Amino acid sequence: MPRPQIKYCPECGNKTESKTPEGDNQIRDVCDACDLVHYQNPRIIAGCIPVWEDKILLCKRAIDPRKGFWTLPAGFMELGETTEQAAVRETLEEAEAVVQTEELYAVFNLPHIDQVYVMYRSVLLKPEFSSGEESLEVRLFAEHEIPWDELAFETMRKSLEFYFQDRQSGCFKFRSADITRPLSR
Amino acid sequence: MPRPQIKYCPECGNKTESKTPEGDNQIRDVCDACDLVHYQNPRIIAGCIPVWEDKILLCKRAIDPRKGFWTLPAGFMELGETTEQAAVRETLEEAEAVVQTEELYAVFNLPHIDQVYVMYRSVLLKPEFSSGEESLEVRLFAEHEIPWDELAFETMRKSLEFYFQDRQSGCFKFRSADITRPLSR
Ligand SMILES: [Zn+2]
Ligand SMILES: [Zn+2]
Repeated sequence: MPRPQIKYCPECGNKTESKTPEGDNQIRDVCDACDLVHYQNPRIIAGCIPVWEDKILLCKRAIDPRKGFWTLPAGFMELGETTEQAAVRETLEEAEAVVQTEELYAVFNLPHIDQVYVMYRSVLLKPEFSSGEESLEVRLFAEHEIPWDELAFETMRKSLEFYFQDRQSGCFKFRSADITRPLSR
Repeated sequence: MPRPQIKYCPECGNKTESKTPEGDNQIRDVCDACDLVHYQNPRIIAGCIPVWEDKILLCKRAIDPRKGFWTLPAGFMELGETTEQAAVRETLEEAEAVVQTEELYAVFNLPHIDQVYVMYRSVLLKPEFSSGEESLEVRLFAEHEIPWDELAFETMRKSLEFYFQDRQSGCFKFRSADITRPLSR
């Protein structure tokens, strides 16, 4: 991915210049008017695997990217919250479901799109849910019902694979993985 | 922390307006000229616990914040890299030391300053290190030598506490914690 550019200084509106600041080793967008260096950083997507009995809650996406495909509830972490709070909030927004997180379960790096996923294991407090604004449909899936060919993202496929592996072995362990390609189809 | 403002549109330089976009539930900086909503997100700091035999490598900070205090090597994750690559790079920059990561060991949320720390356990490939530009001094510490009262950040204190607890028990397990206050002194 080419470096997205901060063309104008967010602080003063001056046109920035792309250059390597003194003492740095990377090209940054620098404002010569107010001397600010505008760094850019990867973003965190927080989500969870919501479980009710032996089933998993998935949402069919109502928005792009991957509209019409199934995903675990997840979204961009906001300022002022923790990854856990973000995961709970996203589940409430996308599936109108209330979850209690159990533990931080998986971290995925997606360096080609500058994202880091932080996924929790969680339990639904009651089997109540419905489609939030970003979902077309929300439902519980037993393992044999998971729509593996209609999953929206590789991170979701991996999260579910890890989950079912660990559930079968009887021992959940923290997982991390790098994902450097889109979902293979 | 008050929400930091993106006063001018990074894309077109127009003055932004703080408002809640339609379908959103938070105040954002919106550009009325090009219709872009400028989201802000927490940043990731990646670092590691570099081990040589029974000792841990710490760096005395040459820069603010917390200049003169000791830290594990860590720094802001850059675009295009993984958390693991960021941790290795920061160790090379701050301690001029080459490490091999063993596993993702701890995640810390610091919602009051919009940071998420991702810390790895790692081993030094050889006992060679020196002060990078951001360090005044770099040295190996046995457990009883750790300068607990001169640590730069609560994240580093917690990382070291977890590490020594797990080393003693003989079993390293993934840790996560929320830190909502500065280092107590
Ligand atoms: Zn400026
Ligand atoms: Zn604009």
